[in-house]
Amino acid sequence: MAPETTQLPAGFTAHIANIGIKDTTTDFLVVASSVPASAAATFTRSRFAGPSVTLSRRQIADGRLQAAVVISKNANVATGAQGTANAEAVVAGVARALGCPEGDVLLASTGVIGRQYPMERIDAHLATLGPPPYPATDALAAATAMMTTDTVPKIAEATVGDARIVGLAKGVGMIEPDMATMITLVFTDAELSPGELDRAFRHVVDRTFNSLSVDTDTSTSDTAAILANGLAGPVDVDAFTDALGDVCLSLTRQLARDGEGATKLLVVTVDGARDDLQAKRVAKSILNSPLVKTAVHGADPNWGRVAMAVGKCAEDTDIDQERVVIRFGAQQVFPGDLDEQGLRELAETMAAAEVHITVSLGIGAGSWTVYGCDLSDGYVRINADYTT
Amino acid sequence: MAPETTQLPAGFTAHIANIGIKDTTTDFLVVASSVPASAAATFTRSRFAGPSVTLSRRQIADGRLQAAVVISKNANVATGAQGTANAEAVVAGVARALGCPEGDVLLASTGVIGRQYPMERIDAHLATLGPPPYPATDALAAATAMMTTDTVPKIAEATVGDARIVGLAKGVGMIEPDMATMITLVFTDAELSPGELDRAFRHVVDRTFNSLSVDTDTSTSDTAAILANGLAGPVDVDAFTDALGDVCLSLTRQLARDGEGATKLLVVTVDGARDDLQAKRVAKSILNSPLVKTAVHGADPNWGRVAMAVGKCAEDTDIDQERVVIRFGAQQVFPGDLDEQGLRELAETMAAAEVHITVSLGIGAGSWTVYGCDLSDGYVRINADYTT
Repeated sequence: MAPETTQLPAGFTAHIANIGIKDTTTDFLVVASSVPASAAATFTRSRFAGPSVTLSRRQIADGRLQAAVVISKNANVATGAQGTANAEAVVAGVARALGCPEGDVLLASTGVIGRQYPMERIDAHLATLGPPPYPATDALAAATAMMTTDTVPKIAEATVGDARIVGLAKGVGMIEPDMATMITLVFTDAELSPGELDRAFRHVVDRTFNSLSVDTDTSTSDTAAILANGLAGPVDVDAFTDALGDVCLSLTRQLARDGEGATKLLVVTVDGARDDLQAKRVAKSILNSPLVKTAVHGADPNWGRVAMAVGKCAEDTDIDQERVVIRFGAQQVFPGDLDEQGLRELAETMAAAEVHITVSLGIGAGSWTVYGCDLSDGYVRINADYTT
Repeated sequence: MAPETTQLPAGFTAHIANIGIKDTTTDFLVVASSVPASAAATFTRSRFAGPSVTLSRRQIADGRLQAAVVISKNANVATGAQGTANAEAVVAGVARALGCPEGDVLLASTGVIGRQYPMERIDAHLATLGPPPYPATDALAAATAMMTTDTVPKIAEATVGDARIVGLAKGVGMIEPDMATMITLVFTDAELSPGELDRAFRHVVDRTFNSLSVDTDTSTSDTAAILANGLAGPVDVDAFTDALGDVCLSLTRQLARDGEGATKLLVVTVDGARDDLQAKRVAKSILNSPLVKTAVHGADPNWGRVAMAVGKCAEDTDIDQERVVIRFGAQQVFPGDLDEQGLRELAETMAAAEVHITVSLGIGAGSWTVYGCDLSDGYVRINADYTT
């Protein structure tokens, strides 16, 4: 966990408020740059994407943003024409306060589906919003304002040359991002062109947020965006990409560990695959198997379920069980013939706060690592009674 | 539930025993016909299929069987060359007792993965097995012998002309069959050729067992087989297929309702799809969503999760949320604007023992219905501590 005093990069300030979207916790966040910033973003591919996503896709098209707005506790999804008009009104109100073009404000929204925003409260609040700089610069407070059922705010930071990169994320369930993820906002004072930023971000997102799964469900609101305002000057793009990768990987692991009801981080690596895509597919099959996830939860040394999850990739006809090797941590469990002592060792490995499963397919050189969590009765309790 | 006195069809008798595979419950079942029977079967497509499956694929190739053997409490999967030799020894032993060719005995096995059969006990028992007729003719007792963590045995029956069809099934978890299912054995005294039987069975399996999902996990041991010994004479094939459909649908619903930890049957129909395949894909996405399943468990009127699960079919770019209609029972929830009374009605519908969700896509005429269950803390408890 990053220290509690992490500041946003130079030029970024945050307005954090409660406007009563659902309760009395902070639910409205504007992070604004003092100058226009290069920007990139990826979004959910859901066919039920909400107006925040469809609107923000247009905003990001020119590679330029000055602010990101997050409304939490209401996703504004499946809300029809009224929902679209409401999203546009929020963006217009924030742009007016900032004195920037409406096209330079990104909106992300997260929470319950199928309810309209309380627009009277939002309009009243927007009427009081002035221009930046805003009072808050604490990344943790900003991340806290995005939370729904998250138990902890998630932030990560890195430096590259004179520049800093600070990422905020939220999300605990409905997480199997597909081209994007939950809500992640990354801010940097590095100077990059929109094209450089977009390439670096997509490269990193693929191996981090797109390799994360909490429950196989894909949000209607997934948004990952980065703003680079250039105040710290130019950076080496490769070094920047590496540092950005560190930030996003840290956020990915924090998101997985805080998955709804999660008690453990589950990391699955598949190597020796025909190609990276096959490795990712098989790794996801293991990571998403409820039987693997419950065994990990109970530290039950039932490694056969990993064999099952590999086996269910039925289209991968080049997978031959004679060549497959399965390991938990450093311990090989298949092929092999675990005795009582071996099963006890395996149970101990599975009782740790972080469980690593590695499967070698023995086909080629493809490999991928994915991040998730165990499946607990806590997940069921949280989700059996969410809206009521 | 069928009455407890359901008898196997004419000519079929059962040997039921405990041979101490894991504990003292019945774990060894042989159902034999007095004469050779036409037969058909479908199996898991798992890349980790066990020797029972690979062996039985060979046995069924000539469309003829005289007996089906089930060993429960040990799947004999991921057990290497020794596991294969053990499966062959079981088949040889039963064929010797029956006085039939080894190729006429089908073996199915279910239980924990990665452990060898206790062959000394099995060999000793096989040495005592004589020829049929066997003492048992009660279908419920035979179904009970196949159970692992099933809470109830599952049987169904139908008549067609002078013939009877009796089906037995087991399975509670690791159920998203792919070309086959858990273990299902169907016996009939109808007279059909192997080709007629195979066509009828595959047609029925597609809309029943292959439309069932408990937890998205596909067993390494899925086997569905049917034996038709012809003792009741010829039947109308279409009428037979309909009656077989009734038996398999009943078993499918019983399997879904007894899913691990299940408290409710969940039935999802998608219509208005481009084609049947799209309807099945979208219906499975809803049925398998842990967020939909937990909401159904808690009778939480959070219908937006169904919209989410439709939306995550991202490849189906012809799905337009403007044309989608979502219903729970007879109540339309989207589009619409449920008031408090509407939400209460929805919560009541979701509190029933059987919850029907219907989604109309408004694209074409394709439709499909799938069967599953809610996701409860009971599922987690059962599976967090299975082997230990």
